[in-house]
Formats: sequence, C-alpha cells, structure tokens
Amino acid sequence: MVSTPQGCFITFEGVEGSGKTTQVELLADRLRHAGRTVVTTREPGGTPISDRIRAVVLDRQNVEIHPHTEALLMCAARAQLVHEVIQPALDAGQVIICDRYSDSTFAYQGYARGQDLATLRTLNAFATGGLAPHLTILLDLPVEDGLQRRFGAGASAASTNRMDRLDLEFHRRVAAGYHGLAQAEPDRWRLVDAQEAVDDVAAAIWEITAAALNCS
Amino acid sequence: MVSTPQGCFITFEGVEGSGKTTQVELLADRLRHAGRTVVTTREPGGTPISDRIRAVVLDRQNVEIHPHTEALLMCAARAQLVHEVIQPALDAGQVIICDRYSDSTFAYQGYARGQDLATLRTLNAFATGGLAPHLTILLDLPVEDGLQRRFGAGASAASTNRMDRLDLEFHRRVAAGYHGLAQAEPDRWRLVDAQEAVDDVAAAIWEITAAALNCS
Repeated sequence: MVSTPQGCFITFEGVEGSGKTTQVELLADRLRHAGRTVVTTREPGGTPISDRIRAVVLDRQNVEIHPHTEALLMCAARAQLVHEVIQPALDAGQVIICDRYSDSTFAYQGYARGQDLATLRTLNAFATGGLAPHLTILLDLPVEDGLQRRFGAGASAASTNRMDRLDLEFHRRVAAGYHGLAQAEPDRWRLVDAQEAVDDVAAAIWEITAAALNCS
Repeated sequence: MVSTPQGCFITFEGVEGSGKTTQVELLADRLRHAGRTVVTTREPGGTPISDRIRAVVLDRQNVEIHPHTEALLMCAARAQLVHEVIQPALDAGQVIICDRYSDSTFAYQGYARGQDLATLRTLNAFATGGLAPHLTILLDLPVEDGLQRRFGAGASAASTNRMDRLDLEFHRRVAAGYHGLAQAEPDRWRLVDAQEAVDDVAAAIWEITAAALNCS
C-alpha cells in the first residue's frame, strides 16, 4: 500500500515586485518533478467567487472604496478560497502554494493602513477557520527595488492597478509589517533575499522547502 | 436662522415577503410631505461597490458560496454603505431609511445559520464603526404568510433568487432571531403587525416614527 503524503500549505509574502508570482511557479515545478501533486493559487482570487471579489477590490474605478470594505472583501475572498481550494487540497495530501494569504491582510490593512490588528485577526480567523500555513516565505527586498521592478522600464500605466498607485511610504510600512510578523513567528517564516538572481532565489527557496516538506 | 434638523436613521427588518420595500417607500413619502429630506436605501447594495457585492451574494449561480464568505460580503457591502451614504446623510440632518441593516446579519447568519453571534458583532462593528439605528421597525408576519406572498399567485421562478430558495425552517429561525433581537433592545425596536392591510401597516409605522422623530 502506498500511503498518502501529508498535505503542506506554503505561502509567499512580500512587497510589490518582489518576485512572488515567478517563485511560486518555479517552486511548484520543482515539487512536481519531485513527485508531489501541487496546487498553486493567489490572493485575492483563486475561485470564481473570489475572482469576482478581486475585480471589485482592484478595479481602478473604485477609488473610493473604504478601507474597512476592502479588508472585509479580502477576508471574504479568502474564506471562499480556503473552503473551496486550500482545505480540500490539504485533505488530499497535496502541496498548496498560495501567492499571498492572511499575512498580507495584517501587513497591508493592519501595519500599513493602521487598522486594529486584533480585529483583523478576528475577521481573518472567521474567514480561514484558523487555518495557518505550515511555511511562509518572505521575499525580502528594499521597497524601492520592488517598485522599480514593477514600474521601471517596460511598465505601462495600463498594467498598474489601484493597489500599485499607493505611495512609497505605504509600501515601507508594509515591509516593516512583514518583518514584525516574521519576528513574532520565527518557526513559520523564512526570509529569502530577493535581490539575488531568480535562479539563486529559487535555489534558496527549494532548500528551505525540502527541509520543511514533511510539514509536521 | 433655520437650524438643521437632527439626522435620524431608521431600519426595516422582517422575513421575506413582509412588505419592507413597500413600507419604506410609503414612510419616505409621508416624511417628505412633512418637510423632511429623506434618503432610502437597501441592503445589500446602495452604492456602486455594494451593488457589485450584492450581485455576487445573490447570484443564483453561486450556490456554493461558503456561509462565512457570505457574512463577510454582507459586512463589506454594509461598510461601504455606511461610509458613503448613511453617515453623510445623518451628518446633513436627513432621515435615512434602510431596508435591512445589521440585524439581518444577526438574524440570518447568526440565528438561522448558527454562526457565532459574538464574532458577527465584531465583524459588524468593524463594518459600521458602531453606527446603530435610532429606530428599527420589525414587520411581524408568520413565515408561511410571507413566503406565500412572495411565491404565491403571480410569483415566477425567475423572480426568485438564491436566498429565497432556502427552506421554511430556515425562515422560522430568522423570525425567531428577530424576536430575540427585539426583546434584547426594546428601546430601539418596534413590532408592527404586517398581516394588516398595507395602509393600516403604514399608519401604524407613521405613528411610531412621528413619536420617535426627534431621535434623541
């Protein structure tokens, strides 16, 4: 008899332009080559309902969305993603890799927008049923470098969205928030220097993931 | 100098088919004839963003929406409505009448779906900033009568939505929830027998509202 491998839930966090989307896919490919079944997803989004919520949150027309509306929408999209995608994948013994998760709410809405962290944690626990990642990779990068990558040569106005137009100071508060969250839960977080070349970053992430993959 | 009248926030609650939409408009008309500026709105909805959220919640395709997703979306729509419509109307000394508000979340998601009421109150306080109505009218009607009105002669399948297709027991729990909420805050709630003729119900509501209209 072949035993079902234990499910593992990995999240990627980091400021804009830190390379999360690229590294999620590279890690997924490598895990598949190692024989694991891998599901990748992103927030907000990842289910038909969550994608519709994402469209409301990121719509450039919705410049007057209230910060509390935004936080509740993010949690709503997450609730659907957890129950429709993440928990079933874990129950099936798969590896699920998510581009952003609860920590984005704490970093963006909490640390950067100044919303009450305890209340955000209550909202988030309601959304996720308390499901936390086994491992969270923080792609660590100076804020200016991330924004330069995102908006530098080749970036078009049409490729930006409402989130991206927020100011540099905001993104600095996000980065500080991530560091605070990582320090508070060192067993779950791993910081990776995202200034290195893509392949070097991927190699560092693989080393961390391979070590963690029994996901106790 | 003419002093600005004090703003007043009135909500209507009740089971499906209890006549809320009709009575909201009749009360608004009568208040306008009495010289007040009146804003009417409904939940979920009432702003462009909230209407888009409403479309997600009520979409008959979204039969697999998770109950926690639904509660968070309701609160998100409410947050936007409070900050964009209700609070500005109150600040301008207007009367704002809302067809459903926080108590619908407590009755439907809390009492009827069994979600934790304390958590729902935390979510709701985050959404509303603690804004409670001055007066809440409960249109009281046996559940069977309301569903008969809604789905009886002349009702078409196309006029129903996902909410309406929930079962009779569910609506009974909603009604019981409303009664529990009303008993807990007797100063805010007024029960009106919605089995009477439309004009008689309107007269009863007018009597209550006129007495309360200085809205201390």
